[in-house]
Amino acid sequence: WKLIGEDGVQKLQRQFSFPDFVSAMAFTQRVADLAEAEGHHPALLTEWGKVTVTWWTHKLDGLHQNDFICAARTDALIE
Amino acid sequence: WKLIGEDGVQKLQRQFSFPDFVSAMAFTQRVADLAEAEGHHPALLTEWGKVTVTWWTHKLDGLHQNDFICAARTDALIE
Repeated sequence: WKLIGEDGVQKLQRQFSFPDFVSAMAFTQRVADLAEAEGHHPALLTEWGKVTVTWWTHKLDGLHQNDFICAARTDALIE
Repeated sequence: WKLIGEDGVQKLQRQFSFPDFVSAMAFTQRVADLAEAEGHHPALLTEWGKVTVTWWTHKLDGLHQNDFICAARTDALIE
């Protein structure tokens, strides 16, 4: 995960690689399910062979401990 | 759809709005299914209440007639 600044808002971002579009989309769905379970929603960019996940807390316009927890839970989905 | 330039590459982009994350994700999945059927893959940015779809042709680093067709087929998914 890397810390990025986007429009002055700090966010956690990681790109995950996959062999094709369908595998990437399957991962996107798993992260979406996690997001619904957590009641916390990232930005999910799905492209051929890659998914870029970005977590931040809209209310704070920045990062909360929960974003780091969600990032760790995202990693756990592929391990 | 609007024509955007990203890193010097022309692309077609449209943002679709939804009442929540689950509806947005369901639309993302439908566009992904269309992409697989077409053998042509867009960038799909899924966020709470919105999905941004971007079509372009990687091989050309720009737009092909097929991108306009896929954009129209994307619209048809919500009508």
